[in-house]
Amino acid sequence: MIKSVSIIGSGNVATHLAKVLYDHGIEINQVYSKSLKNAKKLANNVRAGFTDDLAGIKPNSDLYIIAVSDDVIEKVVKGVSIDTKILVHTSGSVNIELLNQASKNYGSFYPLQTFTKSVEVSFETIPMCIEGSNKKTENELTALALSLSSNVNKISSEQRKKLHLAAVFACNFSNYMQIIAEDLCEENNVSFNLLKPLIKETFEKGSSLLPSENQTGPARRGDHKIMQKHIDLLANKQELKEIYSLMSNQIIKKYKS
Amino acid sequence: MIKSVSIIGSGNVATHLAKVLYDHGIEINQVYSKSLKNAKKLANNVRAGFTDDLAGIKPNSDLYIIAVSDDVIEKVVKGVSIDTKILVHTSGSVNIELLNQASKNYGSFYPLQTFTKSVEVSFETIPMCIEGSNKKTENELTALALSLSSNVNKISSEQRKKLHLAAVFACNFSNYMQIIAEDLCEENNVSFNLLKPLIKETFEKGSSLLPSENQTGPARRGDHKIMQKHIDLLANKQELKEIYSLMSNQIIKKYKS
Repeated sequence: MIKSVSIIGSGNVATHLAKVLYDHGIEINQVYSKSLKNAKKLANNVRAGFTDDLAGIKPNSDLYIIAVSDDVIEKVVKGVSIDTKILVHTSGSVNIELLNQASKNYGSFYPLQTFTKSVEVSFETIPMCIEGSNKKTENELTALALSLSSNVNKISSEQRKKLHLAAVFACNFSNYMQIIAEDLCEENNVSFNLLKPLIKETFEKGSSLLPSENQTGPARRGDHKIMQKHIDLLANKQELKEIYSLMSNQIIKKYKS
Repeated sequence: MIKSVSIIGSGNVATHLAKVLYDHGIEINQVYSKSLKNAKKLANNVRAGFTDDLAGIKPNSDLYIIAVSDDVIEKVVKGVSIDTKILVHTSGSVNIELLNQASKNYGSFYPLQTFTKSVEVSFETIPMCIEGSNKKTENELTALALSLSSNVNKISSEQRKKLHLAAVFACNFSNYMQIIAEDLCEENNVSFNLLKPLIKETFEKGSSLLPSENQTGPARRGDHKIMQKHIDLLANKQELKEIYSLMSNQIIKKYKS
């Protein structure tokens, strides 16, 4: 059973994980950050020691959580000395095999949510994606995850990468679609607020239906007259015309069959 | 003051408008539909007369609301005889001038929301977009709209068309982005439900922030390594690669400046 944890990193994910583990009675041994100031700040919140030296990470924790940006994970793996303790990362995109030089017990402990340091989140409903290099490690990680969240899932590295990619479409790109709408409103002196009830309705309906059951609009209806009007309205905005056509054609194709 | 209304159409918008007006003490004189059955069905719900003959629409209402698909509006305008009574349509994309052959008092009465016949909506918060061919008409329409909703806005035909276009990006295309995510999940045997908390968080944050303040993800961070990994993951899905690149490049450009 995992009773003590060291946190490697001091960013959004590191901060939220350290706090929620601490709140659930897990001992936070040590916080590492390349910035001593940041390490100390987080450590003080969870009654932990702190260091800015990878070689200074002590080997007495049950679990080491690497919550740093993807590019830095390898450097951490090469710098730590943790024997057979469990080592995990929290990345959506990195294969767990990258961790196998540091311990034979390694895995993924990936909370599928966006974090902002200053915004409280309830871990209770956050999907935790777990993978372990062996059964025992996976069971230990699953038990720890279940103490934080009721939504714990065994997800392979391949599945996790695809989930992360899917999240880019579902969240990042759909937010960008709303930025386009925001810009169109601003240009025409209408408030973006006018669209908010419609957006809310779309995504609230969407939460009970699958998106594929929730598609509406001119392309869904095959209303080519309106689509042509819209493309004309976009006038000399070449890139928006391209996005409009590409998306509309995809929707038409999806529902034709 | 508008006390009596005739409804031309029996679809989603016609149904919801007829009911909410009736519930607010407005007399519904008559319902027209090209299907007598549909006209009768809606009319019975709002204690109105009904007809399937444009020439049978009586000229004794204060207001005539055309709530039919865009293509059919002109046919209705040519078929009705309403003297100087007010004539409006509920379309997002049609100029109000199309109505000027039927009356000198005309305009737009556009509820900016998606409607499904069977789903109750509260009009109280629906943005009503009002335009009138003259001041008196505009005032009458505004007063009527204010009796239904606290969110009433004077919007020109040009603005209304751009709003409708913006809504296609904000709602229809962002829903399609979620369909792509749904498909990627299905292919990889992970449940789309795993993404729902993240989507919820994105759009709840989004409701207090503007979308342009809410953009996250690899393109926003300029993380070219991850973007390349994602494009590689999309393998032979040529169209998804194209969407991925187009959206990412737009986001990079937006935040570079």
